[in-house]
Amino acid sequence: MIEDISVDFFGSDSDDFSCDIMIEGLPGVGQVGKLAAEHMMEELGAEKIAEIRSIFFPPQVLVDAAGVAHLPKNEIYRYADEKVRIMFLVGDFQSGSAEGHYILTDTYLDIAEKLGIKRIYTLGGYGVGHLIQDIRVIAAVNDEKLKEEVTNSGAVFAQDEPGGGIIGASGLLLGLGAKRGMEGICLMGETSGYIVDPKSSNCLLAVLSKMLGISIDSAKLQERASEMEVFLERLKTMEQMKTEDELSYIG
Amino acid sequence: MIEDISVDFFGSDSDDFSCDIMIEGLPGVGQVGKLAAEHMMEELGAEKIAEIRSIFFPPQVLVDAAGVAHLPKNEIYRYADEKVRIMFLVGDFQSGSAEGHYILTDTYLDIAEKLGIKRIYTLGGYGVGHLIQDIRVIAAVNDEKLKEEVTNSGAVFAQDEPGGGIIGASGLLLGLGAKRGMEGICLMGETSGYIVDPKSSNCLLAVLSKMLGISIDSAKLQERASEMEVFLERLKTMEQMKTEDELSYIG
Amino acid sequence: MIEDISVDFFGSDSDDFSCDIMIEGLPGVGQVGKLAAEHMMEELGAEKIAEIRSIFFPPQVLVDAAGVAHLPKNEIYRYADEKVRIMFLVGDFQSGSAEGHYILTDTYLDIAEKLGIKRIYTLGGYGVGHLIQDIRVIAAVNDEKLKEEVTNSGAVFAQDEPGGGIIGASGLLLGLGAKRGMEGICLMGETSGYIVDPKSSNCLLAVLSKMLGISIDSAKLQERASEMEVFLERLKTMEQMKTEDELSYIG
Amino acid sequence: MIEDISVDFFGSDSDDFSCDIMIEGLPGVGQVGKLAAEHMMEELGAEKIAEIRSIFFPPQVLVDAAGVAHLPKNEIYRYADEKVRIMFLVGDFQSGSAEGHYILTDTYLDIAEKLGIKRIYTLGGYGVGHLIQDIRVIAAVNDEKLKEEVTNSGAVFAQDEPGGGIIGASGLLLGLGAKRGMEGICLMGETSGYIVDPKSSNCLLAVLSKMLGISIDSAKLQERASEMEVFLERLKTMEQMKTEDELSYIG
Repeated sequence: MIEDISVDFFGSDSDDFSCDIMIEGLPGVGQVGKLAAEHMMEELGAEKIAEIRSIFFPPQVLVDAAGVAHLPKNEIYRYADEKVRIMFLVGDFQSGSAEGHYILTDTYLDIAEKLGIKRIYTLGGYGVGHLIQDIRVIAAVNDEKLKEEVTNSGAVFAQDEPGGGIIGASGLLLGLGAKRGMEGICLMGETSGYIVDPKSSNCLLAVLSKMLGISIDSAKLQERASEMEVFLERLKTMEQMKTEDELSYIG
Repeated sequence: MIEDISVDFFGSDSDDFSCDIMIEGLPGVGQVGKLAAEHMMEELGAEKIAEIRSIFFPPQVLVDAAGVAHLPKNEIYRYADEKVRIMFLVGDFQSGSAEGHYILTDTYLDIAEKLGIKRIYTLGGYGVGHLIQDIRVIAAVNDEKLKEEVTNSGAVFAQDEPGGGIIGASGLLLGLGAKRGMEGICLMGETSGYIVDPKSSNCLLAVLSKMLGISIDSAKLQERASEMEVFLERLKTMEQMKTEDELSYIG
Repeated sequence: MIEDISVDFFGSDSDDFSCDIMIEGLPGVGQVGKLAAEHMMEELGAEKIAEIRSIFFPPQVLVDAAGVAHLPKNEIYRYADEKVRIMFLVGDFQSGSAEGHYILTDTYLDIAEKLGIKRIYTLGGYGVGHLIQDIRVIAAVNDEKLKEEVTNSGAVFAQDEPGGGIIGASGLLLGLGAKRGMEGICLMGETSGYIVDPKSSNCLLAVLSKMLGISIDSAKLQERASEMEVFLERLKTMEQMKTEDELSYIG
Repeated sequence: MIEDISVDFFGSDSDDFSCDIMIEGLPGVGQVGKLAAEHMMEELGAEKIAEIRSIFFPPQVLVDAAGVAHLPKNEIYRYADEKVRIMFLVGDFQSGSAEGHYILTDTYLDIAEKLGIKRIYTLGGYGVGHLIQDIRVIAAVNDEKLKEEVTNSGAVFAQDEPGGGIIGASGLLLGLGAKRGMEGICLMGETSGYIVDPKSSNCLLAVLSKMLGISIDSAKLQERASEMEVFLERLKTMEQMKTEDELSYIG
């Protein structure tokens, strides 16, 4: 009988996987959280320590560039130096069902507890429905005492934002984490919600680096953001040319 | 493993939580029942005695005005004086799934039975699809012998209303409550269904107060209703101005 | 903990509830099967012997003409004389979920087996998408040897009808019944699919009476069919008048 | 209590059902995989050895040309000669729910393991959204070492195709099969996605025959493909005539 969720750890039993903080960057609005977490993992050279599979993920395989099919999975990476010990939660999908979100998040927290996590950062995008210039990083916490630290790092608490709450793992990790005594901070980069948004991820990363007291080279992420800007400019020009063309027919 | 539903009682085991009647005001059409129950709780000074969390609630957290995230929860409050001992059921959400409605309602009734509830009032709105002046309070009961008492308090039994039955906890508490020997009365304030409707809640509260034989100061609720009236008037004026503008283009 | 399905039998253990045939008339297209089964029960004076409730029914209560709320339920009635012993399955709803259909039908068959059922008739409507004059009764069986008997009674086996199969309890009782060694015959009265169709029910009943070798007074059902005809004629006249009005504006 | 999935094997315990490879051709885009697998079974004279039924299939029966109703089922066929021993998985439906896909595929693999399967071929269509002349057979594998063999047989690995992954049993058999040490190759014939496409099935079969080193007479499948071509030509001619008619009104 297939398990609802399976967690496979790599390495031997004697490996020390203990961590202090967890950073979640699963897929979501504008892939803002996912890009930020994956960029950070890459820059730090984090190592994969576990894989999570579940019947709550969509019923399909993903095919990589080489034509090899893989079951959807979420992954746990780890990075440790003298200053920080971080567990990363990244992956292919969030749950496809409402109940699955609760059950998967509970499993993520089982892993976090096993590794000794004391604080969780969840990263995401905050869709505003239009293109924006000055990107704010909106925050929410699961304990009021965390607010000062968050504000000092450049994130803001905005009245009535996010109005509809925080949906999925980014929200439930704060809510269910609090019941296990873990501090939780959700950082959401503002984004249009229409495109993959590395620029918003970059703003998110600036706040997160400051909070963690570590510096992350953001060159690659800025490069992706620049490419996206060029792409958006072209799109705007094309739109404009199309409109002028239509007008010339009329005029 | 996360529980489907968790119920956490506050206080010590020696606390006397026994009640005689239960009043349900969960979210629904026009928030009519929710506003009425919450206003009553506030005026009476009811105290929270338990919280209910469930994987049948939407998979998200709610963020309060201070930026603190909370798991969705329903709550049990209690008020007792020499005349009445009331258990209130209020909260953030109803179930997101059909089966969840049955399972959650069964849990609400477990709590009610534990507290000794003999009668349940469920409060809701009855959406009619247009703005109304004279708001009726429509009733349904789970035992025919309750009808006279209900009619004497000003609620009405309207032929073929509600035609589609009563959906969610307000309905199932009557149906499943009957199987446990509890009297059940559902009171539904007529409402357009388009807006949050404190005016309808106020009408509901008038009937309920009379049935319970207690007086509730409805000043605050009337104030909210007045504010909503002003807001609606402005909306109508704006609509009218817009129509006149359009006509002036034509005329 | 609430059961997924509960079956409550009335009467004492010494009651003889044994039957030979089962007739299912749950809600469906045009309520054709439901009307036929309920009319037959009424004419024969069948008696209720059991009620079925389930979390697979929609999460609501139904309110009767007197304002009394009832949990949705399906019901088992029984009629027996020297010639026939019939178990009827009628009620408020079919399952709201796919899996629920299988699980509920399995429960219906548990009851049928307990009562000694050897043959099942399932009654339904066959929606054709337009008003029809000559109503055929389309049949399907779960054993080829039953076809001659069915054809002799006036029902027809129509190539490629029903093309999409038979959905819900009417179909699954045949399929799952076969695995328990029960004969199964599904009779479907043609109907537009737009209205409640007592005329189609009447045709269905004519075939069923002949198969069972009992006569059922169909006066009441014919009366309802006539009323519906009058209603449809009026509707047509109104449509025609409206069209003529529109034409007079143009001409 | 009805089982979620039931598997019924035919024959006696002493029967040797062992196989080396499995071919899956369940319903999907253009029925490309289904037609290919069923044609191959017929030409080889494969024999049915097991049937699978499940509450995850749609809640209905299918009615055959003779008017006999059958529960939806998937079927296991077997063919063996001196060169090959093949298990076929074909049938009426895939799962109706996301979780059901995982659980059913797990059952398919239990059967495969029992029969000794070492390699799985899953067959399907790859919908491109327009009619095509030169049909490619797109491939995906669950182990990179299988690619050369696949390419040598005429299938292609196309960058970013299929972009959205492979949904349903064709995908999950590769993903979950890998965890059991079985080789997996998915072959997808390009197809418009609008019609049942025997021509695409025929291309699929050519690749598969070559990989298996057996020759399959494809005359019948080509005949069906020709009939479909004639049908499509007629459709195009009718469309053209209709357009010319409309133009003659204007000109």
